Amino acid sequence: MKKIDLNCDLGESYGVFKVGNDEEILPLVTSVNVACGYHAGDHNTMAKTVKLAKEHGARIGAHPGFSDLFGFGRRPIQTTPEDIYNFVFYQIGALEGFCRLHNQTMQHVKPHGALFNMAAVDSVMSEAIAKAVKDANPNLVLFGLAGSELTKAGEKYGLKTANEVFADRTYQPDGTLTPRTSANALITDHEQAVQQVLQMVTTSTVTAVDGSTIPMEADTVCVHGDGEHALLFVKELRNHLTKNDIEIASIL
Amino acid sequence: MKKIDLNCDLGESYGVFKVGNDEEILPLVTSVNVACGYHAGDHNTMAKTVKLAKEHGARIGAHPGFSDLFGFGRRPIQTTPEDIYNFVFYQIGALEGFCRLHNQTMQHVKPHGALFNMAAVDSVMSEAIAKAVKDANPNLVLFGLAGSELTKAGEKYGLKTANEVFADRTYQPDGTLTPRTSANALITDHEQAVQQVLQMVTTSTVTAVDGSTIPMEADTVCVHGDGEHALLFVKELRNHLTKNDIEIASIL
Amino acid sequence: MKKIDLNCDLGESYGVFKVGNDEEILPLVTSVNVACGYHAGDHNTMAKTVKLAKEHGARIGAHPGFSDLFGFGRRPIQTTPEDIYNFVFYQIGALEGFCRLHNQTMQHVKPHGALFNMAAVDSVMSEAIAKAVKDANPNLVLFGLAGSELTKAGEKYGLKTANEVFADRTYQPDGTLTPRTSANALITDHEQAVQQVLQMVTTSTVTAVDGSTIPMEADTVCVHGDGEHALLFVKELRNHLTKNDIEIASIL
Amino acid sequence: MKKIDLNCDLGESYGVFKVGNDEEILPLVTSVNVACGYHAGDHNTMAKTVKLAKEHGARIGAHPGFSDLFGFGRRPIQTTPEDIYNFVFYQIGALEGFCRLHNQTMQHVKPHGALFNMAAVDSVMSEAIAKAVKDANPNLVLFGLAGSELTKAGEKYGLKTANEVFADRTYQPDGTLTPRTSANALITDHEQAVQQVLQMVTTSTVTAVDGSTIPMEADTVCVHGDGEHALLFVKELRNHLTKNDIEIASIL
Repeated sequence: MKKIDLNCDLGESYGVFKVGNDEEILPLVTSVNVACGYHAGDHNTMAKTVKLAKEHGARIGAHPGFSDLFGFGRRPIQTTPEDIYNFVFYQIGALEGFCRLHNQTMQHVKPHGALFNMAAVDSVMSEAIAKAVKDANPNLVLFGLAGSELTKAGEKYGLKTANEVFADRTYQPDGTLTPRTSANALITDHEQAVQQVLQMVTTSTVTAVDGSTIPMEADTVCVHGDGEHALLFVKELRNHLTKNDIEIASIL
Repeated sequence: MKKIDLNCDLGESYGVFKVGNDEEILPLVTSVNVACGYHAGDHNTMAKTVKLAKEHGARIGAHPGFSDLFGFGRRPIQTTPEDIYNFVFYQIGALEGFCRLHNQTMQHVKPHGALFNMAAVDSVMSEAIAKAVKDANPNLVLFGLAGSELTKAGEKYGLKTANEVFADRTYQPDGTLTPRTSANALITDHEQAVQQVLQMVTTSTVTAVDGSTIPMEADTVCVHGDGEHALLFVKELRNHLTKNDIEIASIL
Repeated sequence: MKKIDLNCDLGESYGVFKVGNDEEILPLVTSVNVACGYHAGDHNTMAKTVKLAKEHGARIGAHPGFSDLFGFGRRPIQTTPEDIYNFVFYQIGALEGFCRLHNQTMQHVKPHGALFNMAAVDSVMSEAIAKAVKDANPNLVLFGLAGSELTKAGEKYGLKTANEVFADRTYQPDGTLTPRTSANALITDHEQAVQQVLQMVTTSTVTAVDGSTIPMEADTVCVHGDGEHALLFVKELRNHLTKNDIEIASIL
Repeated sequence: MKKIDLNCDLGESYGVFKVGNDEEILPLVTSVNVACGYHAGDHNTMAKTVKLAKEHGARIGAHPGFSDLFGFGRRPIQTTPEDIYNFVFYQIGALEGFCRLHNQTMQHVKPHGALFNMAAVDSVMSEAIAKAVKDANPNLVLFGLAGSELTKAGEKYGLKTANEVFADRTYQPDGTLTPRTSANALITDHEQAVQQVLQMVTTSTVTAVDGSTIPMEADTVCVHGDGEHALLFVKELRNHLTKNDIEIASIL
């Protein structure tokens, strides 16, 4: 039986600044990426989020990002591999404490925003991240863009990796995502998005923008909980996956 | 044989902002309190500091403070016990990661600055701190002002505690420190400061400002590494302790 | 003809973190207090907010607060009068630039949150604030809790001051607000809240919690735009003020 | 008579974190670039620095940078032109207040670190900066790398510009600085560095690394005050300039 993980970013509120609908998306996903206080989240939000994830039976991962609250970790920042290693390691450690407190074994690490995107095409950054994850805990799964430098670096360091795919983004013939600056970057039709996921999960391929069929391993799908529309889509996706005998389950 | 621990704040640099003479004070102390990125320090400094402490054989402790880099954690901030619990817990977790990486067992937790001073006289704050320390790791030693609410809270939660004393501060008849606003708060004479420590360690008493002799347990002395003068005093103190057959050793 | 100003906090969003319904409350108020990047707001939000306020004809004021984004400026922080003077002055200067850019004359300064509350009962803090306002621009109006140390300090420094009153808070016989920790601190009934404002504006008195009638000057009422409920109340209040021939107008 | 301005970054301390020798370098320079609280500096440091610059008769400029205290504004951050416009404008406004307070007319704006370097080769960023400077005050002088996109953008917006040159950096045949990654990027010999400045000021040329003589306008030289070595060099440079009948004077 085929299986797929659904992951979602969580715990992004900071102080009185509230972000997301954590309680509504949690029952619909199997893995959550918890912000660790650098690009979003804070110690109170982390404590609350780990507890909430446990209650819903979702597996917990660290979601380390650049220390850029103002830019929400979405702005590329040039820095050294040593700095990246240390801030990824720091953020994992901080979340690890809250996981231990609630008897939860951390499942994975998924870099956030600009860190995720830069690492996808930068082997030096990816290796700094993979090494930090391995040194923190060699049992952690590294989530990365399917077929990217990040998953390659994870494999190089002996980590289990998970290929992340997107329901609402189109792919180029070389397997990369169509840049958001292109007109056809996004898939706005729910049915088409669901079909793309089904194809990736059942056949390990995706239809690129030029109509060609290319290989695409899918271990986990990134979904969002911001807004009624997004929540509705996740429900639809779950229905179609179940109807097609695909198990929705966390990676570990 | 009597023994005493010498502790010092370490790893307070932030990015390019350099603070302290970590490499010079390290050989002279037995325990170090490492800043965890809230009031001072950052992930790179923490990585470097833990490695350095290991090389010098000093025992490592977390030095959590308010998230107030601008005020260096020295400004009292009113917040909730839940917030205190979570930010102390977060900071211990972040440092714990770097300790594991270097095969060091974290020895203790010493709150920093305003958090330390407020907790000394506030049982609610102290219990939030003690609970966070215990939940992070029940083997951690809680450092607090000798005879304060903080050490009491540590005992209440079943933690081993260490009474911290000061060489260069005078004491009131009730065992509290003379406030810095008083003219006779500080002991600037090196010899007198050394004698005060010797008295505390050998007789478990101190001579208060009114001339009375009061009980004062001393497990650890707080020393500083900022400036040639401070380093010189620590060397003097060490010489006198050794001459008086007092062992200089970490708590655990 | 009696008149009253309605003021509201605005521009509190920070990066992607959105706060408030600025566009909906703006048409209903005559003065806005714009966050200046310390406790909330950022340079982009300030630029946008000043432009928006101009379009709606609302008068603009600076809303300086503690540099505590995490606590949204609501946590009391102990600091020096010099520090307070400088950070209030800095924040006014930053907003002043955006006002000049849009040919708006800044009308007032209203300290935010903990700074406002602490200053209300602390003459040293209040004088530091008043001096900063005067040095920035002696034509600025200082908004303070009616009858507080802050308005007194403003008068001492020769500033025009505006007594701020609350529709939804009860008053003690000595003219102070009933602390939020008391059961009867808040007025949740819309009609009663409106009546309290009408009484304050038309008779310069308020009925305290013990039933006594005490003097209470009202120059401006603080209203909120967060949520449908709050917006509805402001509309009701405006209707009642207009029906009672009270002009709703900014201070200058 | 030829003239040249000597400029230096100042006021980079943050809270208890001290940077630089402001009091020692001030008597040796004619223009100072004051950090504005984003990449370095704070409201207290700004207040103190403006006062100090006034006392020494140095002309004051704003030194806006990325909001990256941790990276000291030296790390390239990708952001939008609108964001750049607003944060440059904000920082000028904040410093402008302190200048007015001390009856000083702000002379110039010099972007800091990564912002300066990125703008030198990016016309979009440079125009955002130049527009912010002009809108803040059209009399401000824009300091930029000699012959860079930044000075071009300043001219486009009708600003007076100042070409900044370096004593201790070598130049490529196309007039750009030799990248720091090259072995011959730095001029460590004091005499050679002085000669380079003399050549630039007296002949408006510089000798590039390939031995060719290329045009190089020099209005201001960037000098540093960190360390005895740096201070000594500035004194030497001043002596040679004076001996060669070159006036050392601010731009305006």
